[in-house]
Amino acid sequence: MIEPLVLKGFRDSLPKTEIPRRKIMRMLEDVFTSYGFVPIDTPALEYTNVLLGKGGGETDKQIFHFQDNGKREVAMRFDLTVPFARFLATNFSSLPIPFKRYHMSKVWRGENPQKGRYREFIQCDFDMVGADNALSDYEILSLMDASFKALSIEGYTFHVSHRGLFNTFLEHNGILDKSVDILRLVDKLRKIGEEEVTKQLIELTESEEKAKKIISYISRAEDENFLDCVNRLEALAGGECESSNRLREIYALLQAQGIEKHFILDPSITRGLDYYTGIVYETFLDELPSIGSVCSGGRYNNLTSLYSKECLQGVGSSIGLDRLLAALEELKHPLLKEVANADVIIYMKEGQEKKAVECASILRGEGIKTDIYLLPGKKMKAFYDYAAKCGTRFVVMFDDDCKESLKDLITRDTTAADINTIAKIIKEHNS
Amino acid sequence: MIEPLVLKGFRDSLPKTEIPRRKIMRMLEDVFTSYGFVPIDTPALEYTNVLLGKGGGETDKQIFHFQDNGKREVAMRFDLTVPFARFLATNFSSLPIPFKRYHMSKVWRGENPQKGRYREFIQCDFDMVGADNALSDYEILSLMDASFKALSIEGYTFHVSHRGLFNTFLEHNGILDKSVDILRLVDKLRKIGEEEVTKQLIELTESEEKAKKIISYISRAEDENFLDCVNRLEALAGGECESSNRLREIYALLQAQGIEKHFILDPSITRGLDYYTGIVYETFLDELPSIGSVCSGGRYNNLTSLYSKECLQGVGSSIGLDRLLAALEELKHPLLKEVANADVIIYMKEGQEKKAVECASILRGEGIKTDIYLLPGKKMKAFYDYAAKCGTRFVVMFDDDCKESLKDLITRDTTAADINTIAKIIKEHNS
Repeated sequence: MIEPLVLKGFRDSLPKTEIPRRKIMRMLEDVFTSYGFVPIDTPALEYTNVLLGKGGGETDKQIFHFQDNGKREVAMRFDLTVPFARFLATNFSSLPIPFKRYHMSKVWRGENPQKGRYREFIQCDFDMVGADNALSDYEILSLMDASFKALSIEGYTFHVSHRGLFNTFLEHNGILDKSVDILRLVDKLRKIGEEEVTKQLIELTESEEKAKKIISYISRAEDENFLDCVNRLEALAGGECESSNRLREIYALLQAQGIEKHFILDPSITRGLDYYTGIVYETFLDELPSIGSVCSGGRYNNLTSLYSKECLQGVGSSIGLDRLLAALEELKHPLLKEVANADVIIYMKEGQEKKAVECASILRGEGIKTDIYLLPGKKMKAFYDYAAKCGTRFVVMFDDDCKESLKDLITRDTTAADINTIAKIIKEHNS
Repeated sequence: MIEPLVLKGFRDSLPKTEIPRRKIMRMLEDVFTSYGFVPIDTPALEYTNVLLGKGGGETDKQIFHFQDNGKREVAMRFDLTVPFARFLATNFSSLPIPFKRYHMSKVWRGENPQKGRYREFIQCDFDMVGADNALSDYEILSLMDASFKALSIEGYTFHVSHRGLFNTFLEHNGILDKSVDILRLVDKLRKIGEEEVTKQLIELTESEEKAKKIISYISRAEDENFLDCVNRLEALAGGECESSNRLREIYALLQAQGIEKHFILDPSITRGLDYYTGIVYETFLDELPSIGSVCSGGRYNNLTSLYSKECLQGVGSSIGLDRLLAALEELKHPLLKEVANADVIIYMKEGQEKKAVECASILRGEGIKTDIYLLPGKKMKAFYDYAAKCGTRFVVMFDDDCKESLKDLITRDTTAADINTIAKIIKEHNS
C-alpha cells in the first residue's frame, strides 16, 4: 500500500471549505462581469524565462521549475500578473483596448509554509489596462467596493495612497534617489512600529529632519478626512500637482456614488513592490484588522514592456481568497457558518427506489438540492451519522404505503405531507 | 525583450472561449449540486509515487514530473481519478459515506499534441463511492441526462454496456483469461472496423468460432431495444445473472423517470481501462458522432485499495469539457454563438464622468452587464472598433446637456430615453 500523503505546504479542500469558496468565487464573478470585466485563462506552465523576466533573485528560489521531457525550461506560474503581461503581449491585436479582465486561479510558490501560507493558493485578480485617468482609478475602487458589498461583509475600509504623490514629496526633499529603500521601510511600519522605522530612516537618509518629515507625511490623525489629507500631503510635497488633483477627482466620483465612506487616504500604504506608479491600496476588515489586507493593488504604468513595444498603463487588484475565507470563518460569516451538502436527503427502504427517484425529481425541479441516500434499508443509526456529516437538516422518508413525510433533524418534528407540500416547506425555510 | 511564447501543447483562453466555458461549468455545477454532489479540490502537485501507483509504463512517460527544491519527487496530476482515490484514503473518516463529489479542474499530460488534444485541459468529473446497486448506477446516469438537458443540447445518446456481463460471457466461453486483450480489441472497433477486429480476435483466441461469438455479442441491430438486448446478451452469457438483472433494474428506473429514450444498450462499449467492473458508458452527440464521446465513465469497485484498507465501490463520469466546447461551437450552439463582453457600453465626452458613473450604477443595479469606455472623448472610430471587439450591441451616450440616448449598433437606431427606460429596453432584449 502507498501512504496517501499530501505534499508539505499543499492541502486538500474538503466540501466544508470548497462549498463556500466556490460560492464566493461565483459571487465575485457576478460582480466582475456586471462591470464589463471578462474572464481569461493562461497556462499553469510557462517558459521559465518568460515568468522570471530578467529575473533571478528571491522569486527564482521560490518557483517550481524544471526541465520537461522536451528539454524545455518550464515553471509553474507564481502569480497571475506576469502571465497577464505575457498574455497581453501575445494576444494584443485581438483584444479590445482598454481591456478589463479577471482571472481566478491557482498559483504556486515554493516558499516555506507558515500559518495561513501555502505553496498552492488561489488568486482573484481583476485589472484594466489601456487607460490612465481618474475614471479608471475610480472604476477599480468602485468594483472593489461592490465586491465586498456583494459578499455581505460588514465593516471594511479601503486604505488608499498615491505612489506618485509620495515620489513628488521625496523629490521635493531631495531624497528620491533613496525611494526604493524608503518605501520598503514605510511598508514595515505596521510590523516594526514607528520608533524603529524612524531609527532606520535616520540611518538611511543621514538626516533626522528628513526622517521626521517622512514620518509626518505617512502619519495620519484618525479623524483626518480624505480631502484634508490630500491638502496636507500636497503641501508637504511642494504644492498642487497632478497626483494630488488625481486624488481629488477620484474622491469626487466616490462621493457622487455615495461610497466614499469606505475609503480613507492613508499615506502609510506604499505597497513594497517597485512597479506601482499611481494609486495603491490595501483593504482591512474593521473587526479583524490583524489578518492583514484582503484586497490589494494599485496603478502600474509599464506592465508589458518586458514582452512588447506596446506600453500598457494599468490598474488592478488582487483578492487574497484564502485569507478572506479564513477571516470570514473567524467572523462567523453566514456563508461559512452553515455549510450543508444538500437541502434534503431522501431515505428509503428497499423496494421504494422508484418512489424515491420520483420525489427527488420533483424536489430538484423546484430548485431544491436533493440528495438520495444510496443505501436503501440501511439502519437508521448509520443514516443519521451520514446526515450529520452532510450537515443536512431535512429528511424525506416513506411509510410502508410509500406515503411521504418530512423529518426536521433539528426540531426532530416529523410532518406527514405530500411531496409538493414538502417542497414548499423546504423552500420557505431556504428563503 | 522576451518573446511572449506559449509552450507547445498549451494555450491561452481568450474571453471568446473562456466566457462560454465558465458559463457551461456553472450550469454543470448547478446540476451537480442539485443532485447533492459536493465540490472538492486536491493539489495540482502530488508525490510522484502516489500518482503513479505501482505505475510505470505509458503514463510514466506522459506525466510532468520533477524533483522539487526539497528533493521530493513530485508530479502534476494527469487526471482527477487518482487524486480522488488518494483524497478518499486521506480524508475517509471525515466524509459522509456514500460520498458524492464533483471536481472540475485542470490536468496535465505531456503527450504529443494533436488536433483537439492539448497538454493542459479541464476535466469535469463526478463520482459517487460507497454503494453498489442499481439505484446508484441509475443516479449517475440520471445526472448525466440532467446535465446535457441543462446545457440545452439537442440530440445526445448514452451508450451503456456492462463489463461484468461481458466477463460472464467470456467466462462462459472459456476465454476470460484473455479478457484484457479482448477488451482492448473491442474498444478499437470504431477505429479499425469489424473485419480487422475479427482477424485479430481469431489470432488472439486461436478460434474462429470464439472470435465470431465475440463479434456477435458486441454487434447490435440499430433498432434493438434495451431490454431485448439484455435478453440476447444474457443468453450468450449463459443465462440470467446478477449483471443482466442489474441492467433491467437500472432500465426500470430510467423508464419510471421517462428518460429511457436517451439510453441504448451498446455492447461494443467496453472502455479500454482495466478497472471497470460494472456498467460502462460513452456519450455521443447525434449530430456530431465523429467528435467521439463527450462524457464517459463507469463502475469500478476497487478505487482506494492502493492507499487504504477501505474498499470503496464507486461509479462515476467525466465530461470532456474542451471536446464538448469544440462540438458546441461546430453545432453553432447559442451558448457559443453570441459572446459579448457586456450588455452595454457607456461612451462619454470629457466632463461627463459623473453622469456616466451614475448611469452605470443604475444599469448594474438592474442586473445589466455594463462596461464603461475608459477613454472619455476618444474618437468614435476607435470606440466603434472597441465595441466591435467586445461584441457588444448597445451603447449609451450623452448629448451636451448630459441627456442619455441608446444606440443599437446592429440596427444603427438611436433612441433618446432616460436611463431607466434604457434599462428596460436592454432587459427586454436580453430576456
